[in-house]
Amino acid sequence: MKIMSRTPSSSQSQSLVEPAAANGLLDRRFFIKQGIALFGAGGLAAVSGPSARAADPAQLLPWMQFPGAGMSGYGSPAKYESRVARTLIQSKPGTTGSGASRTPIDALDGMITPNGLHFERHHSGVPDIDPEKHRLLIHGLVKRPLIFTVEALLRYPMVSRIHFLECSGNSLVMFGPTPPALTCGQVHGLVSCSEWTGVPLRLLLEEAGADLTAPWMLAEGADAAGMSRSVPMAKALDDAFLALYQNGERLRPENGYPVRLLLPGYEGNMNVKWLRRLKVTSTPNMTKDETSRYTDLQADGKSLMFTYPMDVKSVITRPSPGVALQAPGLYEVSGIAWSGHGTIKQVDVSADGGQTWAAAALSDPVLPRALTRFRIAWKWNGAPAVLKSRAIDETGAVQPTRDALVSAHGTNAIFHYNAIQAWQVETTGEVKNVYA
Amino acid sequence: MKIMSRTPSSSQSQSLVEPAAANGLLDRRFFIKQGIALFGAGGLAAVSGPSARAADPAQLLPWMQFPGAGMSGYGSPAKYESRVARTLIQSKPGTTGSGASRTPIDALDGMITPNGLHFERHHSGVPDIDPEKHRLLIHGLVKRPLIFTVEALLRYPMVSRIHFLECSGNSLVMFGPTPPALTCGQVHGLVSCSEWTGVPLRLLLEEAGADLTAPWMLAEGADAAGMSRSVPMAKALDDAFLALYQNGERLRPENGYPVRLLLPGYEGNMNVKWLRRLKVTSTPNMTKDETSRYTDLQADGKSLMFTYPMDVKSVITRPSPGVALQAPGLYEVSGIAWSGHGTIKQVDVSADGGQTWAAAALSDPVLPRALTRFRIAWKWNGAPAVLKSRAIDETGAVQPTRDALVSAHGTNAIFHYNAIQAWQVETTGEVKNVYA
Repeated sequence: MKIMSRTPSSSQSQSLVEPAAANGLLDRRFFIKQGIALFGAGGLAAVSGPSARAADPAQLLPWMQFPGAGMSGYGSPAKYESRVARTLIQSKPGTTGSGASRTPIDALDGMITPNGLHFERHHSGVPDIDPEKHRLLIHGLVKRPLIFTVEALLRYPMVSRIHFLECSGNSLVMFGPTPPALTCGQVHGLVSCSEWTGVPLRLLLEEAGADLTAPWMLAEGADAAGMSRSVPMAKALDDAFLALYQNGERLRPENGYPVRLLLPGYEGNMNVKWLRRLKVTSTPNMTKDETSRYTDLQADGKSLMFTYPMDVKSVITRPSPGVALQAPGLYEVSGIAWSGHGTIKQVDVSADGGQTWAAAALSDPVLPRALTRFRIAWKWNGAPAVLKSRAIDETGAVQPTRDALVSAHGTNAIFHYNAIQAWQVETTGEVKNVYA
Repeated sequence: MKIMSRTPSSSQSQSLVEPAAANGLLDRRFFIKQGIALFGAGGLAAVSGPSARAADPAQLLPWMQFPGAGMSGYGSPAKYESRVARTLIQSKPGTTGSGASRTPIDALDGMITPNGLHFERHHSGVPDIDPEKHRLLIHGLVKRPLIFTVEALLRYPMVSRIHFLECSGNSLVMFGPTPPALTCGQVHGLVSCSEWTGVPLRLLLEEAGADLTAPWMLAEGADAAGMSRSVPMAKALDDAFLALYQNGERLRPENGYPVRLLLPGYEGNMNVKWLRRLKVTSTPNMTKDETSRYTDLQADGKSLMFTYPMDVKSVITRPSPGVALQAPGLYEVSGIAWSGHGTIKQVDVSADGGQTWAAAALSDPVLPRALTRFRIAWKWNGAPAVLKSRAIDETGAVQPTRDALVSAHGTNAIFHYNAIQAWQVETTGEVKNVYA
């Protein structure tokens, strides 16, 4: 029995490997084309200590000696994964539920976020809504004001779409003067991605006889904050829908149960949860949530309003702070990219701080306004290195550097931070957030 | 304020609607092209009783009057949805965990199954595996037997794929002489669909220097049953992978934590959970789980072995038994289709027991070996009707009738039931399982 060392062997065949960019980045199809054996036996295989015994076919570990647990009506994650949880940040200590919880994106893989870990942002906590009593009113500039029960909404024709949601305040700590020493999820975890299923808003507006030339509507939630925003009619008639299901099951309370507005690609706050009212109007409604909040204060003291689509963005989730490398050797660098303007066209990765870039592989299906997983092979030589990712969307928009973003918008803003993230890999394999 | 009646009005404009098949089936793009207003105000809008008050913008229901609950590290479904749970069926009463739990597919929508509701099938319960102690051994016809820790596997390059899993015993009660009076989930709920992320098996086999011309390998689980199957090398080198993540997060215990084999399209049992051993062999291994079990006893007393891919199949989930219609009117008929041989090419729906068929709309993305959601508009006239769905996959395979399936294979078998399901809609709107 050969027991592999944790330390990958150096490659005898390195000359066969074409670099795709400087400092060890390999072609995005590297693993598919070359496999791993090219790096010699033990290139990645990793076992240390008393492992042979556990893998001996004749050796039965405790859980093979007795029947295991029974079935369950609704399952839970393994107890060994209890550290994989949302990070809770309360806006106002002492209040109930005003704040945000962030998805541990550095502990996840793929494009779907499990419902239990979808980020939260609440303005007055999570209301406990009885679906039998909840009503949705469509009124204002309509011929026939209508009231819908949840049961009625569930009878309507549905669409299913995989879309990300991102809080416009995601990554806001990166506007600060020094790079925060936080995990990737704590900095960038106000983004998640689900398959949403619900009723096209256009159908309901048509049924109410809404004036489809009226440019706006008010969308109001049934939380104690009465969170409300103005929604452009153009978006409502395009791809908006009222989501009733998330990843197959009915919405979770913290994500708008029993019904939320879904405006694909628009800042999270616009996707009003616990939706109780849509009022068609001729002007924007200037609610508290789009005047005192969710406006973008620029360097010159003016504020941008109604900045809806989330711009093109990406971040490397592995490695990242707390998700360290081991010894020098071959690794997969992996992360997520998204754009509120459509599909991700390309993600470039740099291992030399942005001097040279190599295109990463995108994991199918690449869908509009959905998280897209990217992956690239990297042979780390053990020296300090700065990793970056840079996404480009179908409109040709390129994720900006932090310098460019700050120079264009200043640092008064707390919303719409989408700059390139730099991770410094130390000689120890630890990873640090840096402005570089 | 207009309060809509629950009873949809009859249509004044019905002559504008082209039927796509007899007995009320409309074009698959009907809702998109025509909207709902065509059926007159109130065609679907549904409110009865004291609803206006609840929707009055000035009227605050209890949950709008006080701050709601705080955030949570890991969320749960709404308490009002507690009935949406897996149906537990124990094979041997009194034993622990030997049996199956079925996904309530009639309460879900979209293509993704949330992890808490993914079906289970256990042969000796759910082992409580410490991931630090778990090992995977690759041996047999290999140059370098290798042992992997879970931590080592997590370092490997990954792929993410959305795939269904279906137990080969799904729907087995439909082989019986009378149609079982069960819900759609209780009959057909041994199928679920997730985004799986893991390491391509080919990489690990190459690293171990496996003899890739050896036609078989043994895959063994670390449960007390030592559940094991023979896997063709051709499949292992094609699209097999070792799944570590399910819908973004690490596998759930009941679905193989910390690592399971994923053989896209193959019967669920082949996708060995809690994987501890892969042994490359020159012959199939004739394990207990592929000789006394998971073979298909035919009418002539012979058994088929190694029947791996799950054949093309579909079922209407709404309406279905327990998911009844209300008054006559316009409905969306919705369901799921899948094939272990590739993508779903078409799903036809019949409202007259299979005399005439109309093509349903397929919800994007339509992916190989994944659940595909289909939808079609149906104007129910209130008379008894028999609804059926019939899936066709990219190979041209057509889902068979029950008569054809039984005539080809008999009723000794309990595996690989994929016949067309007939739902009888009664005048009351209730739905019954029928052989028709």
